[in-house]
Amino acid sequence: MKNIPNIIVSRLPVYLRALNHMQSQSQQTTSSQELGEFVGVSAAQIRKDLSQFGEFGKQGTGYNIAFLIKKLREILKVDRVWDVIVVGTGDMGHAIARYQGFTNRGFRVAMVFDNNPTLIGKEVGGFVIQDAKTMVNAIREAGIEIAMLTVPDTAAQEVANQLIEAGVKAILNYAPISLSVPPGVMLQYLDPSIGLQRMTYYLE
Amino acid sequence: MKNIPNIIVSRLPVYLRALNHMQSQSQQTTSSQELGEFVGVSAAQIRKDLSQFGEFGKQGTGYNIAFLIKKLREILKVDRVWDVIVVGTGDMGHAIARYQGFTNRGFRVAMVFDNNPTLIGKEVGGFVIQDAKTMVNAIREAGIEIAMLTVPDTAAQEVANQLIEAGVKAILNYAPISLSVPPGVMLQYLDPSIGLQRMTYYLE
Repeated sequence: MKNIPNIIVSRLPVYLRALNHMQSQSQQTTSSQELGEFVGVSAAQIRKDLSQFGEFGKQGTGYNIAFLIKKLREILKVDRVWDVIVVGTGDMGHAIARYQGFTNRGFRVAMVFDNNPTLIGKEVGGFVIQDAKTMVNAIREAGIEIAMLTVPDTAAQEVANQLIEAGVKAILNYAPISLSVPPGVMLQYLDPSIGLQRMTYYLE
Repeated sequence: MKNIPNIIVSRLPVYLRALNHMQSQSQQTTSSQELGEFVGVSAAQIRKDLSQFGEFGKQGTGYNIAFLIKKLREILKVDRVWDVIVVGTGDMGHAIARYQGFTNRGFRVAMVFDNNPTLIGKEVGGFVIQDAKTMVNAIREAGIEIAMLTVPDTAAQEVANQLIEAGVKAILNYAPISLSVPPGVMLQYLDPSIGLQRMTYYLE
């Protein structure tokens, strides 16, 4: 497999979300112009990004949406369903455990952990909250590679270390602090302040 | 003001978060190498990005962290506190209304709206949930420009249109669907599936 720049890979899920939206509106085909306008990227960039992975469009007729969705799902490996664990069942962990937005996007919450004795054993979103002490073994046994981290800031690095010890390779961090992970482990942040700060620059 | 590419602006909040972390560890100075490793960007890119806005580091001694934080907060206009509204008080809106992570990052939730009669008038995170019917006027009167959107997917575009009508210029969308906004209105997404899909590409 050729080495695709990360910046290109990072745009593909955004294209996929836009294509899913078009499909939900019963649209059959799109162009690099239309898709580009929709996601705020130039048409040339769309064509260049997609051409890294093959020939998905036809000159003059554009892209077949269903076909391009299928291909992007394969490329991003979300043509399957990945088990994901949630660590931390405060407000945000609670919301994620009950979140319906992963359907058809490649993910399913499989287990939920917390270290708070008053929460362990309770239910959230249909999951029994498990004791964080059992987390490393449970992840290892299940072979789960993806975790969402919604613990307090002060605990985030320590819990991330445990997840990595357990074999987790991909962490989505909701704690609004920077984490260190070793090579081979991926880290993405879901930090509302970052999203907002990317816009205030442009406000008067 | 010169026209800085959006991709550069979008990296500044990430640098700021990393610098805040270093400062919280009592670190005084950093280098483009160290900061770059921390955020996964090359040292050259860090230097190039920052040089767009001025001279912040000294050859040999690197960056003074407190000074660079101050400058980045000014550049991103988060050296002040922006009022933000939350629309939708389901699980996610509830979590955001009670979220403590905006402190010192430039934002404060000012009002919370929902259209569910059983929720209007109740409290969440110290806010009385207001009737969405009064939203446009309330936003206009308060002159609020930033909104976080946590309504169901099917309502997101319609509510976004109302926010824009009310004068909102920056929307952070938690609904996992693509929205259309007119020129002059900014849109960022907080979509966990996107973060996860950016990592599954690299998983075996």
